[in-house]
Amino acid sequence: MDDDLGALPPKEDFSGWYNELLWRAEIMDVRYPVKGLYVWYPFGFALRRNVYGELRALLDVDHAETLFPLLIPETELAKEGEHIKGFEDEVYWVTHGGLSPLEVKLALRPTSECAIYPMYHLWVRSHADLPLRVYQIVNTFRYETKHTRPLIRLREITSFKEAHTVHATWEDAEAQVHAALALYRQFYATLCVPVIVSKRPDWDKFPGADYTIAVDTIMPDGRTLQIGTVHHLGDHFSKTFAITYEDVDGEQQFAQQTCYGISERCIAALISMHGDEKGLVLPPAVAPVQVVIVPITIGKRKEEVLVAARVIEEELAAAGLRVKVDRRDLRPGAKYYYWEMRGVPLRLEVGPRDLDAGQVTAVTRLGDKSTVPRASLRFGVADLLARFTGTLTRRGEEHLLSHARVVDTMEELSVAIEKGVAIVPWCGERTCADFIEETVNASVLGTEVQAGFSCAGGSACISCGKPGTGALVGRSY
Amino acid sequence: MDDDLGALPPKEDFSGWYNELLWRAEIMDVRYPVKGLYVWYPFGFALRRNVYGELRALLDVDHAETLFPLLIPETELAKEGEHIKGFEDEVYWVTHGGLSPLEVKLALRPTSECAIYPMYHLWVRSHADLPLRVYQIVNTFRYETKHTRPLIRLREITSFKEAHTVHATWEDAEAQVHAALALYRQFYATLCVPVIVSKRPDWDKFPGADYTIAVDTIMPDGRTLQIGTVHHLGDHFSKTFAITYEDVDGEQQFAQQTCYGISERCIAALISMHGDEKGLVLPPAVAPVQVVIVPITIGKRKEEVLVAARVIEEELAAAGLRVKVDRRDLRPGAKYYYWEMRGVPLRLEVGPRDLDAGQVTAVTRLGDKSTVPRASLRFGVADLLARFTGTLTRRGEEHLLSHARVVDTMEELSVAIEKGVAIVPWCGERTCADFIEETVNASVLGTEVQAGFSCAGGSACISCGKPGTGALVGRSY
Repeated sequence: MDDDLGALPPKEDFSGWYNELLWRAEIMDVRYPVKGLYVWYPFGFALRRNVYGELRALLDVDHAETLFPLLIPETELAKEGEHIKGFEDEVYWVTHGGLSPLEVKLALRPTSECAIYPMYHLWVRSHADLPLRVYQIVNTFRYETKHTRPLIRLREITSFKEAHTVHATWEDAEAQVHAALALYRQFYATLCVPVIVSKRPDWDKFPGADYTIAVDTIMPDGRTLQIGTVHHLGDHFSKTFAITYEDVDGEQQFAQQTCYGISERCIAALISMHGDEKGLVLPPAVAPVQVVIVPITIGKRKEEVLVAARVIEEELAAAGLRVKVDRRDLRPGAKYYYWEMRGVPLRLEVGPRDLDAGQVTAVTRLGDKSTVPRASLRFGVADLLARFTGTLTRRGEEHLLSHARVVDTMEELSVAIEKGVAIVPWCGERTCADFIEETVNASVLGTEVQAGFSCAGGSACISCGKPGTGALVGRSY
Repeated sequence: MDDDLGALPPKEDFSGWYNELLWRAEIMDVRYPVKGLYVWYPFGFALRRNVYGELRALLDVDHAETLFPLLIPETELAKEGEHIKGFEDEVYWVTHGGLSPLEVKLALRPTSECAIYPMYHLWVRSHADLPLRVYQIVNTFRYETKHTRPLIRLREITSFKEAHTVHATWEDAEAQVHAALALYRQFYATLCVPVIVSKRPDWDKFPGADYTIAVDTIMPDGRTLQIGTVHHLGDHFSKTFAITYEDVDGEQQFAQQTCYGISERCIAALISMHGDEKGLVLPPAVAPVQVVIVPITIGKRKEEVLVAARVIEEELAAAGLRVKVDRRDLRPGAKYYYWEMRGVPLRLEVGPRDLDAGQVTAVTRLGDKSTVPRASLRFGVADLLARFTGTLTRRGEEHLLSHARVVDTMEELSVAIEKGVAIVPWCGERTCADFIEETVNASVLGTEVQAGFSCAGGSACISCGKPGTGALVGRSY
């Protein structure tokens, strides 16, 4: 799998590029014999470990990690009316244990409200138990009938991080919604992935929520990818599952809840945002290998070069970096190709001439070449990695800016939507949204848009002309 | 849940003690509304994280972590004849996606050979790809009809670590079996859990294996708990799934395989081995809280004591310890009770008298009290924790020794088996094993016994008198 197969398809052919990158960089193997189920290669899993390690570190500040069962009895899943309606078409059902039919069918969790909240009913008793903030990272299942795609649309979501919180008041829960959004922003900043935050239209909110705020990014082809959602659940579920607490006055009150999730789409986003025709481009924070050292051992002085490479490896590893010397018996060019495909942020080349000059040659994954004095290598490498992170962040922001337009008319929207997303004034009526969606073949994704740039435009709904506010319109995955 | 409810049931009533400890120490909640499925409390999950962190660290030296799908099509599961026969009575079947019946039924993995080996068929091509060593930590499922018990006998095993390796020769695979056993010994040494290793009788080996070597421990009531297995698979599965490689001479050869697993029974073992009537007793290596600081703030000088406690916390945290100051508005005695239930290895008491004397009072979870000079606290604490680990290891070994007997006659076996396990000479014949098992109502668990003490006894089979070798006999969970 490390044969030199030349460049990837051009990134303009996004599907072709993405699919070929996933196997050539050894992220996912798509050959598992069931549609919509994929296998993590070890390299892909190492990336997943680092990405979810960052997410855990952010959550662990004030959430507790836990683990609830996969199987939800039909009787529990059906309790919240809107919720079951939202999921019943796409739930996998376990009907048999061995050769015996089960008395109660068991659903593979599509999400865990109905597994967790019967326990919250038991766990929450007093205002002193609140707020309660719990999360788990688990596999969840959807019987997708649409076209499936690794990391993006799956039947087994292998890496769903879902948090479920309980609060005393609706306002406390709303504050948690904003805290969760801040946490998600911080997470995506670590991945150098720019995001657009917006409040989903009422008809597109989570089944059983008061409202849903979504985090989207823009893929290379201009389509949006939803990479996180935060739901204010109000007391819908607490009334269904009898989650009550005794307030300071000794009265029983229904609790207020939120939930919020991120799946392995976060990895699809970071791969798609940064990668190029040579392969992955990984942010140092999550790259399985941050620095690869390639010894240039052509000619004599081979031993000397290999020793120097090993000393550098030890020095950088001691500084906490994920570093590797590539000692394989391959041409340097083949090694460059191999590690570029796997997105390693920084390559150090160490040859006889570098040794004589007391320096190391450094090449970033984006091709910036420099020399670093050997004596201060550790600091030089840290500096190059920090600047590389900065470059990825800036490129991401530029990508977002160049694929988003604030427009005032349907004509402008029709043009803008071919390139990416648009923000247009909309009155908030469903009929106008339907008209916009049909006219430009795209979706009204949300309002109260926060995109890191000014979203201020006109205020006359582009459908009916009545007063409106900015709505995000785009074609989504 | 932190109310003072007094002591646990006596440990002699093992089931009562175990069940009450699991909820009072907040390890597992057993009230989930499906039999055999349990919920990890946050504290229990923190313990799980540390335990599996240790296991990962050992495996990561020369294994790669990865992740395969949960759902296995019936067509794959049925390929290896012995294997499917071993599991068909206890597999959960998914038969419907949404409202539609599936064309091919999908099994929830009972173990992942049939999910992984179709991919190994694609991954393994040349001798240069070998050895291949991969592991995953996943949920697996068994439709248990026997009595279920948290962490021990479950329908959803939430934390199955399974490794799957591929080798060129049968001998290479056998060497891996021994490497895996060495790794498991090291893992259980970290948990201070003593083990007995033995080769399971042929009729009790893994379905589809050449042979199985098992790791057992002895529970407080003398019954054995299987806490790890290592299987030499030979070429059974490689022939079924066509896992072949090109050898150095360019010939295609069937690969040789092993697999080995550990489940959350490792946590059941460490809880049961060390706990007492005050609650958990946790080895420092995996304790979620290693040191708890209780400020003794009775009387004046409260602020001074709280500051001193915070400085100690920072100092110990900087030294890499998991440390916590209990600042709650509770009596010291209530705090002692709370943290003893949760197994914290070391409690530090800091009061005005300690401040004046330039010392800290230290009490281990087993009640050993000492004073540590404040100036060298960090080293004093490290020393106490190391000695605590040593004490748990020694106690574990004593438990094993006092529950195992080497005996030569059926009469002696009948007596010994009431207290624990026995090692008896056995000729290797099934009929003799059946006779032994029926006579003493126990199982012949294995031969080639390694238990950390001399297993040498007589050599005349206690059933037929023909030449035999030592076999482990016990009643198992």
